[in-house]
Amino acid sequence: MLAASASLLNIDVVILDVGDHTPAKQIVSSPPHLGHIDGSFADPEKIKELAAKVDVLTVEIEHVDVSVLDEIAESSKIAVHPSPATIRTIQDKLAQKDHLSEYNLPVTDYMRVESTPESIQNAAAQLGLPLMLKSRTLAYDGRGNYVLTDLGEAEEAIAALGGRPLYAERLVRLAKEIAVMVVRTSSGEIRAYPAVETVHKDNICHIVFAPLRHSNPAVATRARTLAEDTAKTFAGAGVFGVEMFLLEDGSQKSHLQVCSANTDISDTLLLNEIAPRPHNSGHYTIEACYTSQYDNHLRAILGLPLGSTELKVQSAAMLNLLGYSNSMEEITRVARAAIEVPGASVHLYGKRECRKGRKMGHVTLVGDSDDAVRASLRQLLQALPDATLESLDKYAPLLPPAGIGRPSSQPLIGIIMGSDSDLPVMIAAARVLDSFRVPYELTIVSAHRTPTRMTEYAHSAASRGLRVIIAGAGGAAHLPGMVAAMTPLPVIGVPVKGSSLDGVDSLHSIVQMPRGIPVATVAINNSTNAALLAVRILSASVTSLLDAMDLFMKKQEQEVYAKVSRLERVGWENYGKS
Amino acid sequence: MLAASASLLNIDVVILDVGDHTPAKQIVSSPPHLGHIDGSFADPEKIKELAAKVDVLTVEIEHVDVSVLDEIAESSKIAVHPSPATIRTIQDKLAQKDHLSEYNLPVTDYMRVESTPESIQNAAAQLGLPLMLKSRTLAYDGRGNYVLTDLGEAEEAIAALGGRPLYAERLVRLAKEIAVMVVRTSSGEIRAYPAVETVHKDNICHIVFAPLRHSNPAVATRARTLAEDTAKTFAGAGVFGVEMFLLEDGSQKSHLQVCSANTDISDTLLLNEIAPRPHNSGHYTIEACYTSQYDNHLRAILGLPLGSTELKVQSAAMLNLLGYSNSMEEITRVARAAIEVPGASVHLYGKRECRKGRKMGHVTLVGDSDDAVRASLRQLLQALPDATLESLDKYAPLLPPAGIGRPSSQPLIGIIMGSDSDLPVMIAAARVLDSFRVPYELTIVSAHRTPTRMTEYAHSAASRGLRVIIAGAGGAAHLPGMVAAMTPLPVIGVPVKGSSLDGVDSLHSIVQMPRGIPVATVAINNSTNAALLAVRILSASVTSLLDAMDLFMKKQEQEVYAKVSRLERVGWENYGKS
Repeated sequence: MLAASASLLNIDVVILDVGDHTPAKQIVSSPPHLGHIDGSFADPEKIKELAAKVDVLTVEIEHVDVSVLDEIAESSKIAVHPSPATIRTIQDKLAQKDHLSEYNLPVTDYMRVESTPESIQNAAAQLGLPLMLKSRTLAYDGRGNYVLTDLGEAEEAIAALGGRPLYAERLVRLAKEIAVMVVRTSSGEIRAYPAVETVHKDNICHIVFAPLRHSNPAVATRARTLAEDTAKTFAGAGVFGVEMFLLEDGSQKSHLQVCSANTDISDTLLLNEIAPRPHNSGHYTIEACYTSQYDNHLRAILGLPLGSTELKVQSAAMLNLLGYSNSMEEITRVARAAIEVPGASVHLYGKRECRKGRKMGHVTLVGDSDDAVRASLRQLLQALPDATLESLDKYAPLLPPAGIGRPSSQPLIGIIMGSDSDLPVMIAAARVLDSFRVPYELTIVSAHRTPTRMTEYAHSAASRGLRVIIAGAGGAAHLPGMVAAMTPLPVIGVPVKGSSLDGVDSLHSIVQMPRGIPVATVAINNSTNAALLAVRILSASVTSLLDAMDLFMKKQEQEVYAKVSRLERVGWENYGKS
Repeated sequence: MLAASASLLNIDVVILDVGDHTPAKQIVSSPPHLGHIDGSFADPEKIKELAAKVDVLTVEIEHVDVSVLDEIAESSKIAVHPSPATIRTIQDKLAQKDHLSEYNLPVTDYMRVESTPESIQNAAAQLGLPLMLKSRTLAYDGRGNYVLTDLGEAEEAIAALGGRPLYAERLVRLAKEIAVMVVRTSSGEIRAYPAVETVHKDNICHIVFAPLRHSNPAVATRARTLAEDTAKTFAGAGVFGVEMFLLEDGSQKSHLQVCSANTDISDTLLLNEIAPRPHNSGHYTIEACYTSQYDNHLRAILGLPLGSTELKVQSAAMLNLLGYSNSMEEITRVARAAIEVPGASVHLYGKRECRKGRKMGHVTLVGDSDDAVRASLRQLLQALPDATLESLDKYAPLLPPAGIGRPSSQPLIGIIMGSDSDLPVMIAAARVLDSFRVPYELTIVSAHRTPTRMTEYAHSAASRGLRVIIAGAGGAAHLPGMVAAMTPLPVIGVPVKGSSLDGVDSLHSIVQMPRGIPVATVAINNSTNAALLAVRILSASVTSLLDAMDLFMKKQEQEVYAKVSRLERVGWENYGKS
């Protein structure tokens, strides 16, 4: 994928890899005076042969011979990225943890252990059981991890980890796994991509969702900052994949924390691992961002200006295609199914042989809402040879059928009301959204009786992915205005008619907002119009809704024409009699 | 670019072209048992050699030897796309016109002419002067066109067109040139991409804008339908580039036509030329659409299901990079400048030599608004060796400075008001939009005094690219509601306080809309809130505005805190005295 980016800039590329038809060599031919190299990235002579042909050398795997890279960087004018020192630190996971700790970056508690039961016992005493034992080197995709639940397994663990040097980590309870791609130039300019959620299966990246959705809007911002701070501590240019843990403490936060405007105090992030190269969790950037991780890696190592790391679509997901067995045909079948999935881009890597667990390709899904992307993901997951209903419902649940009144898991619109007595008025809004197939949630939030809940709802709305809030309230009707004061989203207010004052009280409470905080007010009790307005608002980002609204208006017009005809046909004396 | 699409699906590709390092051969290496072919697409033996290696054969240039394609299609099981018959028809522009006329598709008046002054004289008598003379074959990028203004030039024209067979066309007055890419499968499934505006310079495609913006919403729809109808008449699978003329009559339409809901009767579209292959006017699809023209061409010729042809971004433009001289360095310099342009993707074609007018690459720009894309285009055009202030102002005018009160050429928000007496109230909205750097237009539209203008404004708003309308009105205040009744866009109503009834008349007129047509109503005279609401609405599609609104709200909060401090410091007796 890096080679494909290079060819778009007329940049000559020489690849070192075993064989003449490896994936990268298929993608880009090298000019005759250069030519690709057949050899291993572990072979110092081959690395030198490569270096002799290039101006800039970059490495896409950490398990490389670093001393020869050092030698090349020191003895020639060739730029080597990432810097050999960075690769050396990252190769050894314990050195990596030490490095991060030195810079006061948050990591799980960890310690060096020797390959003896006594040393492991000592670690368990300090870090608790179950204990995460990890091989320091040559470990990736979960290989080299062992979760020790009982001290009696110590010998077994040492054997399972191949007798390589080890270290131990405190096992933490995860709410989510998060990843952020970061690109840095030699001069230290740094840009982070959006935070994404990664879902692992058997310790291998299975699905990525971009952007991260979380009820605490500070989490995504903090994840990006943490990733940037991390990349700053490593020398050399290029992209870095920064994997993190979001701890479960967010779910245990107190009501006091929830209603504080500064929600930064909960939802702890810890660094897990750093990859000093383009990373699986950044594949989505090819279709979903203004500049892909490969384009930006190339720019960084060539000393060119960096491109925007922002999303150009509303929502994206990435599914890895790993070999399910030795059958290439299985992969082809999944790819064949994938091209029928809305918003899917299939990337097969040109590997001629399939093995169980081998990365054969990936599929990126993009769309104008999380909901659309999840629907596509469901279709894609169904095509996998190992599809189960459970995995479908976990990662891509079905939308509830219209009219059932169960909320969507990826709502774009939140319908809230001050009291269950408003439900008869507000239900019309839900019906309209059902008819436009717009995903929404519907609940009760009272400004006066549940102010904490209201604050939490308003603060979390945008970061959960909502784009519009419809709020109905009667009487003093503070809900729409107070919610609008605590979210940057558009809020539509529905004045609900109470037992006195004919709804004028609610109308004036909702519409007469002070300068600075707008509420889009509709007619008294007219939640139908609130939902139609929400659909019109969404059409700015979901352009198909413009056509749908056009159609709705034409249909409405025709209904009146039908009444005109009927009036003409039956005469006004008889109209309405039969 | 087609080869790049193929490699993503692990599809082996064999290229026939002269030389070993042509652009396509650089992008994809062929497996050893196949291998690319060094030869000309005009050489029947080489075409047969190619056919012997493949299952599906596709052609990316019309000027190929069709008889050998016929032979291959008839004597083997190899699928040839586009069908040789289609290529034959399209190769001869007169045959192409005859074909289109036969199917009752709209073309300019044309006729066959012989290469004699008499025949040309006869054509001029029928089609008028100036007369467009065209070579029937081997003409592209404007080569083979001659505009005859005086009959005395006939001999000169014949010589200039190389003595090749000719035909003549009536010269039409163009409002715009439009192109639509269409993809069709062998079974006849057809999907059109969005209509785009193409800008030609010296008869070569210079810039493409996607999607087409036009005050008549029917034009884009009709262009897509016309392109589909055209593609249906040609045999074979693949993508077709359909180029059209939009005639100037749109500017001459009468007021009656303007206020008719059916605006289809004006704005004539005529077919210009068909390309039976991926086309320059479709390059933008690589970054801007869910499925690129190359992905879909590949799917079509392989009998795979087609992908969505819809845009996945809000706005895009494409600039061709043509050789300015023999200097490769000039192209490299433009490409170097282009990678600094927001939303730009650079595509250099790997050609090792540059010639004046040679297609060396292209740059695609994408963004979340036409305005953002034009700003990027301006930056890009400035980097061209032949940049002139005139060309910049023509294709990518500067945004007017804030506060000047001149409208943007690519507004996202329309501010309208019933009377100039509303301006003092409504100007606050413009100031807010200036501060958020949101492009808008501001004008007077009276529901009661200019109902035709109001109808035209409402009908054209969405197809001109507006996403929100802010309408201010006083008294009976019909403007917001009537505009909302004729556009699918969200309309924000600002009740303007009149001399009696304290603005309650306007408020109730605006907010108490019937079920079916919503108006987002804000407080009386509060156009500040209308603009802030418009910004919140836009944030659904321009996500950076979410952060901007967050910041605005924090600043607003801090202003109140500053007052709290001041009140504490000076005491309430002295507050407001100094």
